[in-house]
Amino acid sequence: MTKDKDLNDLFLDTLKDIYFAEKQILKALPKMAKAATSDKLRAAFDKHHDETEGQIERLERIFELLGKPARSKTCDAIVGILEEGKEIMDEYKGTEALDAGLLAAAQAVEHYEISRYGTLKQWAIQLRMKDAANLLDETLKQEKKTDESLTVLAESAVNLAAAA
Amino acid sequence: MTKDKDLNDLFLDTLKDIYFAEKQILKALPKMAKAATSDKLRAAFDKHHDETEGQIERLERIFELLGKPARSKTCDAIVGILEEGKEIMDEYKGTEALDAGLLAAAQAVEHYEISRYGTLKQWAIQLRMKDAANLLDETLKQEKKTDESLTVLAESAVNLAAAA
Repeated sequence: MTKDKDLNDLFLDTLKDIYFAEKQILKALPKMAKAATSDKLRAAFDKHHDETEGQIERLERIFELLGKPARSKTCDAIVGILEEGKEIMDEYKGTEALDAGLLAAAQAVEHYEISRYGTLKQWAIQLRMKDAANLLDETLKQEKKTDESLTVLAESAVNLAAAA
Repeated sequence: MTKDKDLNDLFLDTLKDIYFAEKQILKALPKMAKAATSDKLRAAFDKHHDETEGQIERLERIFELLGKPARSKTCDAIVGILEEGKEIMDEYKGTEALDAGLLAAAQAVEHYEISRYGTLKQWAIQLRMKDAANLLDETLKQEKKTDESLTVLAESAVNLAAAA
């Protein structure tokens, strides 16, 4: 029944999955920025919001390269990851631990994206879609850089605490 | 109402979250191993199953260090990530793309774990819980190594395809 499905189908399915995820992330980031108490953390979320818009455009270019309409497919993973972030925002609202929780939620999102873009890039290479591979690599590098910046923020909180 | 919650609470909540996640992963891995067609991929899942048992024990030691009972808290993120893996197993069963899909699902799991253990380790340092930080770092290193091995497997598939 499904014997005819191949890596092209899996690539397209996963593209739809991350397209859905990016759009959910785009909606979540302003809420996370609004909730953050640290200016640096808010600035990091605002910056990533702008980057996410560019990442969505890159995905739309890949759909074009494939000659397929840009469509979303519900991504249970990002729904769950963002739901956890929302719980943290609710449960830790007004507490000193809120920013730490927001940072952790954002890093879980970044790692999901890093995993998906890494996979899609490998498949694009395997499927000999060089332009798509380059676009995916561009986003992958951006996601890794964002995760590193968030780690620096998390570590600076550690250093502040250690110095206190 | 929640003003009194602090980083200690967030640490404990997140510990319960990853404890739940690890137990779900422990249940999912034998199913993924059974589904895999490549011997190398099956061996990687079996190996990670054993490692996961050790990671669960390390979490239980941290609960002990905290003087708290080892309890799970539903982790929506891992539920979503594993649900996606299950969908791949169903939709790509019997196809040539199944192993690629299983590998991708496993890497999404690894990245979630890397993000959570990285966060927990930082918080343990911030909370000056050296023994907990060391245990978390041990698991974090193991998860990163597992992700690297899975990347090598994914790349070897690429190389095989390129050589074909």
